[in-house]
Amino acid sequence: MTRINANYLNLPGGYLFSEVARRVATFSAANPEARIIRLGIGDVAGPLSPVVIQALQKAVAEQGEAAHFRGYGPEQGYDFLRNTIAAAEYAELPVSPDEIFISDGAKCDLGNFQELFAADCRIALTDPVYPVYADANVMAGRAGRADEDGRFKGLIYLPCTAENNFVPELPSVPAQERPDIIYLCFPNNPTGTVLTRSQLQVWVDYARENDALILFDAAYEAFIREPGIPRSIYEIPGARDVAVEFRSYSKTAGFTGLRCGFAVVPKTVTGTGPDGKRVPLHALWNRRQTTKFNGCSYIVQRAAEATHSPEGKAETMAATDAYLANARAIRDAFESMGLTVAGGHNSPYVWLRLPGDMDSWQFFDLLLAQAHIVGTPGAGFGPGGKHYFRFTGFGNQADTAEAIDRLRGLSL
Amino acid sequence: MTRINANYLNLPGGYLFSEVARRVATFSAANPEARIIRLGIGDVAGPLSPVVIQALQKAVAEQGEAAHFRGYGPEQGYDFLRNTIAAAEYAELPVSPDEIFISDGAKCDLGNFQELFAADCRIALTDPVYPVYADANVMAGRAGRADEDGRFKGLIYLPCTAENNFVPELPSVPAQERPDIIYLCFPNNPTGTVLTRSQLQVWVDYARENDALILFDAAYEAFIREPGIPRSIYEIPGARDVAVEFRSYSKTAGFTGLRCGFAVVPKTVTGTGPDGKRVPLHALWNRRQTTKFNGCSYIVQRAAEATHSPEGKAETMAATDAYLANARAIRDAFESMGLTVAGGHNSPYVWLRLPGDMDSWQFFDLLLAQAHIVGTPGAGFGPGGKHYFRFTGFGNQADTAEAIDRLRGLSL
Repeated sequence: MTRINANYLNLPGGYLFSEVARRVATFSAANPEARIIRLGIGDVAGPLSPVVIQALQKAVAEQGEAAHFRGYGPEQGYDFLRNTIAAAEYAELPVSPDEIFISDGAKCDLGNFQELFAADCRIALTDPVYPVYADANVMAGRAGRADEDGRFKGLIYLPCTAENNFVPELPSVPAQERPDIIYLCFPNNPTGTVLTRSQLQVWVDYARENDALILFDAAYEAFIREPGIPRSIYEIPGARDVAVEFRSYSKTAGFTGLRCGFAVVPKTVTGTGPDGKRVPLHALWNRRQTTKFNGCSYIVQRAAEATHSPEGKAETMAATDAYLANARAIRDAFESMGLTVAGGHNSPYVWLRLPGDMDSWQFFDLLLAQAHIVGTPGAGFGPGGKHYFRFTGFGNQADTAEAIDRLRGLSL
Repeated sequence: MTRINANYLNLPGGYLFSEVARRVATFSAANPEARIIRLGIGDVAGPLSPVVIQALQKAVAEQGEAAHFRGYGPEQGYDFLRNTIAAAEYAELPVSPDEIFISDGAKCDLGNFQELFAADCRIALTDPVYPVYADANVMAGRAGRADEDGRFKGLIYLPCTAENNFVPELPSVPAQERPDIIYLCFPNNPTGTVLTRSQLQVWVDYARENDALILFDAAYEAFIREPGIPRSIYEIPGARDVAVEFRSYSKTAGFTGLRCGFAVVPKTVTGTGPDGKRVPLHALWNRRQTTKFNGCSYIVQRAAEATHSPEGKAETMAATDAYLANARAIRDAFESMGLTVAGGHNSPYVWLRLPGDMDSWQFFDLLLAQAHIVGTPGAGFGPGGKHYFRFTGFGNQADTAEAIDRLRGLSL
């Protein structure tokens, strides 16, 4: 009898963005004339930049020539890209090329990395946050069931609210219930907030003192403009022993449809084996990837390499500047409407506190019906997002400006 | 305390092909003048065909234009590809487009699919076979530890040997120990053998009678030339209720470096939930993919689409014909040397029974040292492969011809 993994039945009804897509499709079918503006899912407006297109074209041409064809590449990624990343992104930090694992995206890495750990590890995560962290652990049986607010009994939630400026506090749990694994995402998705160096140091120190691991999602580091805000957790002393970092080309270089990201797994980060011995996570992740992954597409790795060139960096800077300008305009609009809002600086995300007791899916439907705008309900990011709503700066400028006009006309 | 998934410690030392690469690198460093011919890992000689290159170039150009740019695609794959596959590959079979899930490769799908099942499901697999099936289940805790021959206590091995013509027999275990999940791969990797329609029907009937699931790896179906050999398990009556099929563009169209494959999950295939209710695997796999995967690269999906065009099919046929001719030549050479050999028809693989008690890693080292040829040790495919060795027809014709000359000179 093929018994299923019953943990799947504990998941919420649908993956957040699938549910958003379903509701939008239903609305569009009923209102074919409505011009919908999407400020919801964190997709970029595109197109890919010239330097990326050139790199792709060159790599495609190579794949058509016997002398330059490349078949299976290393599951960990090609050295040309690992070396380039180490030099461009971690030049002054203690990260070596062979600690960088190229993948087809940070979502996959963040979903899969928990496989390396025992089924009864205790998981902490900020609330709200990117839903993949919770969902992947629900599927692995670490979270148990959710209550009616979507709060899983087995997860340790670190509330990030307007009251604490969206900065998580250390878990207030008895010593024996402290988390083994802590997911942090800064600049945060969805709140758009960042941690200062000293705020992040608190977490690194906590992980070191409690033999915990930090899974640091830095997918939005390229949006940081403020000096002194860490882009990598390895800027924090001691992090190399307790933190794995995840990065993405999706938002920075428009790779949402190309698919490339990477995980940094320092050789000094360890977990505890059943005999109490320390086991390097680098070896475990390498085994996971070589067994269940076959490498990121060669042509995509060449495109990723191009983003680190001077021209590529300039193009990324221009694109992220534009998204930041959009986010700031959305934020300013809500502020001028007297609403409470976070993000929009150092981040493409704007996080709106809904008026009164309004529920985020209720606002989703209202926004779609009244303004033909798609945003993302805060509830999708955790129970703490129930009265919040996420907007993104990833639209193009004209659409964003029109969306802002429509937002100003909302009757809330 | 971050406790690791201790099941990882039960894995063999390294993933098969990583160990092969390591030994080759060591040999090359010591013998820089040796011209090594690789008939080992199942990589194609390339290059990509003109119709695939054209499709890639067109898709790349689109990604550089705002009007045609595509960001996040559906995690399940674009409809253009799902529809094309359904029409081209399953026209006369009961498979609908929304039962086809596009991925970045069959290896990933075959590694990940076991996540959908309870941790105590019993797994059967042919011996020898592609190592990912066993390794993924070891990592999930379903296999326990291996004995010194690499035989895992928790797996049900279905021996495929020269004695039974490499056709697995139904498991000879008591009723209460029958497998819940059965991995079958035909044309088989590594033995190169195929199942007839009636031989495959036996397995479908067994799965139906025993409420078991067949995970059918059809990565090599494009090499079948013999009429009457099923290319898809859905050619077998009743399979739609008990089988999931996996396919790949790697070997058929040279996509080993591009990365694309797909899984067919009929909506009629179910597992059993904890309350005894039937749960469609289609919904579970959809949830897995939407949570932990972000879709195959758009440009690669366009390339995959192109392989199904008349020109694409002709090119695939020409490429697979060439690989088959290589495989047949290798097989014929061994036969003329008086050795026992399988495969080389309907398959790019040739499976050599080593003389006497020779061990496969011993032969690997001998072959590399004497003939500068890289093959794949049978032991890497399971305990039943200990005295066998795999060669592939994926080299180019000239290299294969030279390799055959060198093989004839071996002193065994």
